[in-house]
Amino acid sequence: MTTLTQSLSGIGRRALGIAALSALCVGALVPTKADAQDKIRWKVQATFNTGWPALGDPIARVSETLDAVTDGRIKLKIFEPGKIVPPLEISPSITNGNLPAAYNYLAYDQGRIPSAVLFSAVPFGMEPWEYAAWWFEGEGHGLAEEIYHAQNIHPLLCSTIGPETAGWYRKPITQLSDLEGLKIRFSGLGGMVLDRIGASATLMAGGEIFAALEKGTLDATEYSMPAIDEILGFHKIAKFNLFPGWHQPSTSTHLLINLDEWNNLSDPDKALFEMACTAATMRAITTGEALQGAQIKSFPDKGVTAAKLPDDVIAELKRVTMEVMTEEAAKDADFARVWESQKAFHADYQIWKELGYLPRDFD
Amino acid sequence: MTTLTQSLSGIGRRALGIAALSALCVGALVPTKADAQDKIRWKVQATFNTGWPALGDPIARVSETLDAVTDGRIKLKIFEPGKIVPPLEISPSITNGNLPAAYNYLAYDQGRIPSAVLFSAVPFGMEPWEYAAWWFEGEGHGLAEEIYHAQNIHPLLCSTIGPETAGWYRKPITQLSDLEGLKIRFSGLGGMVLDRIGASATLMAGGEIFAALEKGTLDATEYSMPAIDEILGFHKIAKFNLFPGWHQPSTSTHLLINLDEWNNLSDPDKALFEMACTAATMRAITTGEALQGAQIKSFPDKGVTAAKLPDDVIAELKRVTMEVMTEEAAKDADFARVWESQKAFHADYQIWKELGYLPRDFD
Repeated sequence: MTTLTQSLSGIGRRALGIAALSALCVGALVPTKADAQDKIRWKVQATFNTGWPALGDPIARVSETLDAVTDGRIKLKIFEPGKIVPPLEISPSITNGNLPAAYNYLAYDQGRIPSAVLFSAVPFGMEPWEYAAWWFEGEGHGLAEEIYHAQNIHPLLCSTIGPETAGWYRKPITQLSDLEGLKIRFSGLGGMVLDRIGASATLMAGGEIFAALEKGTLDATEYSMPAIDEILGFHKIAKFNLFPGWHQPSTSTHLLINLDEWNNLSDPDKALFEMACTAATMRAITTGEALQGAQIKSFPDKGVTAAKLPDDVIAELKRVTMEVMTEEAAKDADFARVWESQKAFHADYQIWKELGYLPRDFD
Repeated sequence: MTTLTQSLSGIGRRALGIAALSALCVGALVPTKADAQDKIRWKVQATFNTGWPALGDPIARVSETLDAVTDGRIKLKIFEPGKIVPPLEISPSITNGNLPAAYNYLAYDQGRIPSAVLFSAVPFGMEPWEYAAWWFEGEGHGLAEEIYHAQNIHPLLCSTIGPETAGWYRKPITQLSDLEGLKIRFSGLGGMVLDRIGASATLMAGGEIFAALEKGTLDATEYSMPAIDEILGFHKIAKFNLFPGWHQPSTSTHLLINLDEWNNLSDPDKALFEMACTAATMRAITTGEALQGAQIKSFPDKGVTAAKLPDDVIAELKRVTMEVMTEEAAKDADFARVWESQKAFHADYQIWKELGYLPRDFD
């Protein structure tokens, strides 16, 4: 673009009448489409610490990336957990417009929206790439939009990661009865399964667990993947880390945007948010998969034993899980149809997973 | 933004001197950073048909998404395979600046750059999310940049997908000797392994395979995942589709950009290309994982039998693969260091994969 001073020197300033100059200026000042795109300055409540790899850092990445690609036009100011509203109030605050957006764990909405938990973590449910495939290529995003648009919220998948561990225990678990009477921190549907088996499951936020373990209020706990559990320090007290993560083969977190704010975005900005969250989901998977092996390798130095739950314990956990899921589906129509959709997708995926890939213990 | 005519009517046009008006205009016309970003109009040579799901469509998605998020400022014109240059000439054309960019399968550079094949497909190598994790979180992108910057090319991971099938055969393969003497289309390192076992492996482009099978020039072939093989029609002739995809547990494709063009991009545009390819990689994984189960379910209606290779055949294929890989590594320093990097990453990942996840045949 030639600047106006260059133009003026070229054609002679005195020869140019006010009207002509005015017309020139007006023409130059008609906003281009790029100019017309609004600056976006949103407060975004995070539900996990943004310093936690894979589980928490995706929203920090989205914020940095949107800032970078728009050269500062879009800035999301991320607030650490609880800094604006506590976890259970995140979605209601977006519904009523007090919060434009949040990086939220939908299971926190389970009390008001029973099906929400199915978009977060499902015992014996989908693996991370399978959940993402169901979300993007299957019915996942459509079902979530139906359920959350009714809450005046637009949901985008913004992270999915691999299994949690089956928990940190003071003693090894070699049979189902070892779980009976155990005071254990366990979330969501997995906690309901353990309760039915005779444990006493309670939900407790990440920051409170260590103290409860130390005091003996808890005998055991699950929280997340090994590299995140390491930050919380459970290995200092409970020396047996069990696998596999039967209760949570994947953990997904979503960017929730007030539906009016979403509808007010230009089409390019909608596409930009979608792309940023899709890329963040890829990086959440890769961060999660990259860090766990080295973490587990460090266990012996810390006196931690990693062990697999016996096959018969896993089989019984699955049987009870199906009981719990069936009962939950009978109580809520949305829960039923989301679970049916996930089961149908999973049935087809299982055919491919078993045939196409080498077994996981092939090395 | 208030337009100039509104400003003029408010303060009275006559009262405004030329100098003041000029200053106002100049201020308003200093290009913003957004204005300063250049339009990008690149020809991009694709190496796979853009109508092929997961393998070919990611570059079409990148083109559409960049167009959408920039409101048309960035347009990549994608050319179907061979329309500008044939596969083996893609990378050289980018090196010498005749082509600004391509969506290329790096294995096509194997003749000139032996390590290139390790970024595409490795027998008994990484799974798709594992390759992506090595690329983004491990040494993958750094090694690829070192090797390709020397070719005046900047590489971005733009797609990775799950295993190919182990091939389409006229007769079942139940022992290693069934492979001996077989005229088979098989690519890259996997072909070298089959040759050593006594088969006769040839490389042939996707479009030529069906006719060769029909004529009997080929007894068998592998090409890609079931949903892509379906398009090529192999099932009409060879009725045994074997699994797992030992020779190619993942297939990765990259966006290659002439390094001068890359260096000329603004920082926001560099970040935009990276984000677009990262998002496309996520969708390549999800598209690939979503489609194969239903495809395999349709086999009985087509008279196709899906079968697993026997464990002892797989074990022998792995033994020979390690021989071939070791010999290739001895011949080329880059091959050696990329393979070492992948092996080290894989060793840690294996710990996590076995412990964290349920077995693949658990259902």
